[in-house]
Amino acid sequence: MPPVGPRSGDAIFANVERVNAELFTLTYGAIVRQLLTDLEEVEEVNKQLDQMGYNIGIRLIDEFLAKSNVSRCVDFKETAEVIAKMGFKMFLGVTASVTNWDADGTCCSIVLEDNPLVDFVELPDTCQGLYYCNILSGVVRGALEMVSMKTEISWIRDMLRGDDAFELQVKLLKQVPEEYPYKDDE
Amino acid sequence: MPPVGPRSGDAIFANVERVNAELFTLTYGAIVRQLLTDLEEVEEVNKQLDQMGYNIGIRLIDEFLAKSNVSRCVDFKETAEVIAKMGFKMFLGVTASVTNWDADGTCCSIVLEDNPLVDFVELPDTCQGLYYCNILSGVVRGALEMVSMKTEISWIRDMLRGDDAFELQVKLLKQVPEEYPYKDDE
Repeated sequence: MPPVGPRSGDAIFANVERVNAELFTLTYGAIVRQLLTDLEEVEEVNKQLDQMGYNIGIRLIDEFLAKSNVSRCVDFKETAEVIAKMGFKMFLGVTASVTNWDADGTCCSIVLEDNPLVDFVELPDTCQGLYYCNILSGVVRGALEMVSMKTEISWIRDMLRGDDAFELQVKLLKQVPEEYPYKDDE
Repeated sequence: MPPVGPRSGDAIFANVERVNAELFTLTYGAIVRQLLTDLEEVEEVNKQLDQMGYNIGIRLIDEFLAKSNVSRCVDFKETAEVIAKMGFKMFLGVTASVTNWDADGTCCSIVLEDNPLVDFVELPDTCQGLYYCNILSGVVRGALEMVSMKTEISWIRDMLRGDDAFELQVKLLKQVPEEYPYKDDE
């Protein structure tokens, strides 16, 4: 079958199965609360959320590639745009933008102005070190690893900490030899 | 403002904010896995999922009442129908049916033939006692408690255990005096 062009994030999002965002938000809140109770250390909760996200990301990438008709991206720059414009739209229903590129094109920021994960969320003083949305950085890291890009991801801005947006810094560490988890003819 | 009629579950679902069902499914799976690791005893995991669901249900009921235009239900029978036809549709995007009423109308079953929580899920042998979807029974229990109905909810059928559907038995224990968490003029 000849390749067809990539679909817009909106078009894909309109056609995937979806659940109510508030249910998702509250369910995610329940996880974070559970982890805070079980692990006690905020730093451990951050790690665990990232790890959960990673495990999700390495699976979501399959649905993303299958539904989006995106073919292999040329470089990290194109990949970052695809994540921001299509990935976030397809899964969370929001669009992100890519900015703050460094000179050699291996580090950028993905900026989210809307984020369903944090609706109704306020962090108590005891959770100051918490990266509440750390699952997202894990998802992006996991998904990128499955397309051969090892990255380091950190939060630069966080609305729950009083910033005006969410900003994820994505740094490309290396492009590992291509070992796709799927075959071309699948 | 004069009351307007209740809206269909489909109409409501089309208008609420939504996220990708696969993201939700994988996120829920991550919670269950986390609880299994942290709590070890499957029975404890069942309890914790139910409690998480309860905490979600007591909040979701507000969105449900606000968006559905459902006015106070006449009795438990009507309430069960509303949950099955509108509640499940509005939050999970699936419809359920109500069946197996007992003679005095205080016990029935809600049957789900489709359940996005369990897509891609297979339980390993070590999890035989697990009620994977126990969060759902908690949500229903919590939501009903906020409209004055104390219930006991248990799984009669579970597709992850080889049954042909999910069947939640809902038993009305008592209707507590009405203490609504919201005021009529809100």
